[in-house]
Amino acid sequence: MGTTMDSPSQAWALRVPRLLCSLFLFLSLSTTARAATRRHEWEISYQFKSPDCMRKLAATINGQSPGPTIRAAQGDTVEVRVKNSLLTENLAMHWHGIRQIGTPWADGTEGVTQCPILPGEAFTYSFAVDRPGTYIYHAHYGMQRSAGLYGMIVVAAAPGGSDAEPFAYDGEHLVLLNDWWHNSTYELASGLAAVPFVWVGEPHSLLINGRGRFDCSAAVAGACNATLPECAAEVFAVEPGKTYRFRIASITSLSALNFEIEGHPMTVVEADGHYVKPFVVKNLNIYSGETYSVLITADQDPNRNYWLASNVVSRKPGTATGTAVLSYYGGRSSTWRPPPTTPPTGPAWNDTMYRFQQSVMTVAHPGHVEPPPAIADRAILLLNTQNKIDGHIKWALNNVSFTLPHTPYLVAMKRGLLGAFDQRPPPETYAHQGYDIYDKPPNPNATTSDALYRLRFGSVVDVVLQNANMLDANKSETHPWHLHGHDFWVLGYGIGRFDPAVDPASYNLKDPILKNTVAVHPYGWTALRFKADNPGVWAFHCHIESHFFMGMGIVFEEGIELVADLPTEIMGCGKTKGRH
Amino acid sequence: MGTTMDSPSQAWALRVPRLLCSLFLFLSLSTTARAATRRHEWEISYQFKSPDCMRKLAATINGQSPGPTIRAAQGDTVEVRVKNSLLTENLAMHWHGIRQIGTPWADGTEGVTQCPILPGEAFTYSFAVDRPGTYIYHAHYGMQRSAGLYGMIVVAAAPGGSDAEPFAYDGEHLVLLNDWWHNSTYELASGLAAVPFVWVGEPHSLLINGRGRFDCSAAVAGACNATLPECAAEVFAVEPGKTYRFRIASITSLSALNFEIEGHPMTVVEADGHYVKPFVVKNLNIYSGETYSVLITADQDPNRNYWLASNVVSRKPGTATGTAVLSYYGGRSSTWRPPPTTPPTGPAWNDTMYRFQQSVMTVAHPGHVEPPPAIADRAILLLNTQNKIDGHIKWALNNVSFTLPHTPYLVAMKRGLLGAFDQRPPPETYAHQGYDIYDKPPNPNATTSDALYRLRFGSVVDVVLQNANMLDANKSETHPWHLHGHDFWVLGYGIGRFDPAVDPASYNLKDPILKNTVAVHPYGWTALRFKADNPGVWAFHCHIESHFFMGMGIVFEEGIELVADLPTEIMGCGKTKGRH
Repeated sequence: MGTTMDSPSQAWALRVPRLLCSLFLFLSLSTTARAATRRHEWEISYQFKSPDCMRKLAATINGQSPGPTIRAAQGDTVEVRVKNSLLTENLAMHWHGIRQIGTPWADGTEGVTQCPILPGEAFTYSFAVDRPGTYIYHAHYGMQRSAGLYGMIVVAAAPGGSDAEPFAYDGEHLVLLNDWWHNSTYELASGLAAVPFVWVGEPHSLLINGRGRFDCSAAVAGACNATLPECAAEVFAVEPGKTYRFRIASITSLSALNFEIEGHPMTVVEADGHYVKPFVVKNLNIYSGETYSVLITADQDPNRNYWLASNVVSRKPGTATGTAVLSYYGGRSSTWRPPPTTPPTGPAWNDTMYRFQQSVMTVAHPGHVEPPPAIADRAILLLNTQNKIDGHIKWALNNVSFTLPHTPYLVAMKRGLLGAFDQRPPPETYAHQGYDIYDKPPNPNATTSDALYRLRFGSVVDVVLQNANMLDANKSETHPWHLHGHDFWVLGYGIGRFDPAVDPASYNLKDPILKNTVAVHPYGWTALRFKADNPGVWAFHCHIESHFFMGMGIVFEEGIELVADLPTEIMGCGKTKGRH
Repeated sequence: MGTTMDSPSQAWALRVPRLLCSLFLFLSLSTTARAATRRHEWEISYQFKSPDCMRKLAATINGQSPGPTIRAAQGDTVEVRVKNSLLTENLAMHWHGIRQIGTPWADGTEGVTQCPILPGEAFTYSFAVDRPGTYIYHAHYGMQRSAGLYGMIVVAAAPGGSDAEPFAYDGEHLVLLNDWWHNSTYELASGLAAVPFVWVGEPHSLLINGRGRFDCSAAVAGACNATLPECAAEVFAVEPGKTYRFRIASITSLSALNFEIEGHPMTVVEADGHYVKPFVVKNLNIYSGETYSVLITADQDPNRNYWLASNVVSRKPGTATGTAVLSYYGGRSSTWRPPPTTPPTGPAWNDTMYRFQQSVMTVAHPGHVEPPPAIADRAILLLNTQNKIDGHIKWALNNVSFTLPHTPYLVAMKRGLLGAFDQRPPPETYAHQGYDIYDKPPNPNATTSDALYRLRFGSVVDVVLQNANMLDANKSETHPWHLHGHDFWVLGYGIGRFDPAVDPASYNLKDPILKNTVAVHPYGWTALRFKADNPGVWAFHCHIESHFFMGMGIVFEEGIELVADLPTEIMGCGKTKGRH
């Protein structure tokens, strides 16, 4: 395999880590021929953009939002030099779904795996993409993801290898879904942290590949222009009779979405980089942080076009359908015509069972089952509730609302900086017997903590996420939980209160799908299992950006003693100032 | 004198520097009795504010903008712990007019004297206030000053000492002038850096003590509320027959202002902390970064109130008069009534000579003349022009547009990190013979540089700032230049091109005023002299925030070898990462 060790441009590279990483790749992927290094140079800056026709300052990568798609083949190394050209704002970039085996310092999670990148500085992320599939990248600091810093990662399977795709198609399209506000992320965050709580409201628009359509008649004169090419709908060209793979990712800040291609049933074949036992849907529910691949066949009347539609589900929608166009005419040309229909509006927003059923239906492809360990060494039961702390509305797990420390755990633990965060172990469970998840939290007072869960290296861990009623009566939302550094088996879903004495009996141990992000449905629970076999420190949190900001997350540590020497580039903040 | 050495709360304090500083104070101010340490704890965060009735996210100190007034007595030590509770944004705070003798690391100038303070971190500024007078503090990073981080510093003279006030008054009021935009500073800065240049336009309002009045009928519904107490005009209470000192400071981002108290002539007695040979004005021209004290006597009809008015001069005004009220009734009570008149509108905005004459009139009080050295060791002639670099509009000095390095000079020079900035000396002069300052720049191409001027320690330096035409024909603006770490003698002003062979003969060497900020008038020049006797690295720049952002500044170094050991707290960025 090729390595980058003799590259001349290594000023910012992480030399030792890459060597270790290369060694790991060599050992584990030695069947893969011609692994390459895919280098990218990114400059992050604010630019005025009009993704939904409304002018707004957006955070961009090389002037673009979404950023460029990273394409690589299984076994490649991806190397991205991220230059911070923001004026006063720091930065960190996360590679969502990439497990960072051997490179925990490249996970890009501020406060967990690195200090942020200061204005004027650059940081080079270097990591192996060891599995094929559809992934995402996005900022992981403050609420910068909402500001526009996101894009897709597509890793091609090695043909003929054990991970080769168990399906065929003629062409491929990428669909990146998002929600969008005209408010700045500073305004969003300040409102969330205010007393009383100020909620910015439902998204102003839904974007497909960074393009949406806000109703300019509702805007201040001059700031909105419906004729800008920048906000023209994305067009996906198909040829009649051919089959296409659509790689679909959701990076929404808030919204659960339902995605539909008018008149074209979708066969789901991949979820979060794992092959799915194919099933057909009219439309796909997709939660923030999830990716899917679906196949469609262009078998409809080729004399017209069709809508791609993105609709809000799980919250009462206040945002117009996001649209794009499936074109049988060959793309964004003068012959392009809008579909003659109105865009699909998706299922009823509050039809939880509709979404629940798709979740349950998503299991591993028969040819690609990786059976989970039969028994867990440890089970953590997490009650997801809203709480109040000093008048601030927070999210909490077992009444502990998470706060990020300002010294990254990875450095703090490796260097023994015990004062950097709360050393007391966070709670493993809550008083579930008799707890009424359909009622408001009986104890709305929570504490904040930056304590983490220390996992025995190599142990098998179950986590059951229990959803419940929020502070307001008769309200429970969907929470997509994302785990860094791992995929987990999705063992089961339920509606109602999880009973540790009963419900594990219903776990799917036969063919559970591996995922990195999974939905916890309103008033429901989701059970997952993973092996703590990736040395490092890993965040696990609700992927709704405002929920994580409000405390809805935890952190795992495992095998810190096995982590190689840390690159000094991740240090420089908090207690790591001057420690190297 | 008292020191803080035995204070229990020193976790963040700069121990060694304070010791040196205290030593210095002891030696230089040993006549001052009972010097105290004035401690402040500040938390910086974004809050929604409506200073001019329009709701906007503002950067605040302990929830307030302007921040609290720092009051101290000559010889005191001021200690401010600045906690950064911004979400993703760094911070630095400058103490404008405080020379920081012995504490160059406490000047708060990001890129020059310190690395910025990261979110979640705190930095304690500790410095002596060795001279009485009226000063300002404000953020000195990016364009955070415009976001709301500013306030006043008032240092009382030691009664009976050599710096005792040569004037008397019955009461005192503080007037802090500003201009205000509803756009975020990110929007302002992104527009300034864009190609093509995007100018946000004239200020939305002028604030007096953080209070202004935007016309809500021009605003989006809901965001503007003219009845908010927060934006009610400030009221200054006076008793008939008494004399008041008004300490007036301007912290505008852009505007040159004219300040008037209707019907009350002002006797100017202090400028930038130095006593002025008293002169009477109907209204006072004040530029960003300047402070003045004036005396007025409440000798008008006490049965009505009077306007305080702030008007834009030097640029064609696009902003309503900023107002407050002088009340003979005793303040913000139910008996308060608006003045029966319309507020003063000030002099013609383009009457340069009116402003020029006030500048010339401002000389040292006869009892407080500090004569300048008769001859300078070095003279630097700086042509202030606009230029274009790669399509970006910039400001430049002798065709060099200044950029801040990301390693603070102070650390880079003390530690010999020569690669941290351009080592070539910047130009001492420009080709002035035959240069037509009334025409557009013949060479609009400039270079950027972060080179600095190294001054021989103890030498006497003259700087002549030459103003000229901008990129657009028939346009030249006023630039208020501010020097850190020093006061300078203002030797002279002129209109037209400065001739080094002729004009120095007209310098005022008899009673020039000492200032830290001085205006360079349209198409004019200003000559100043200072002693390079304060070990450290010091910025010298146009105090219009957007102009400095666009390159209108230089930096001086002097006596770096005499600077004491640097506190590690100022490090951690650029090449200072891991150097301590």
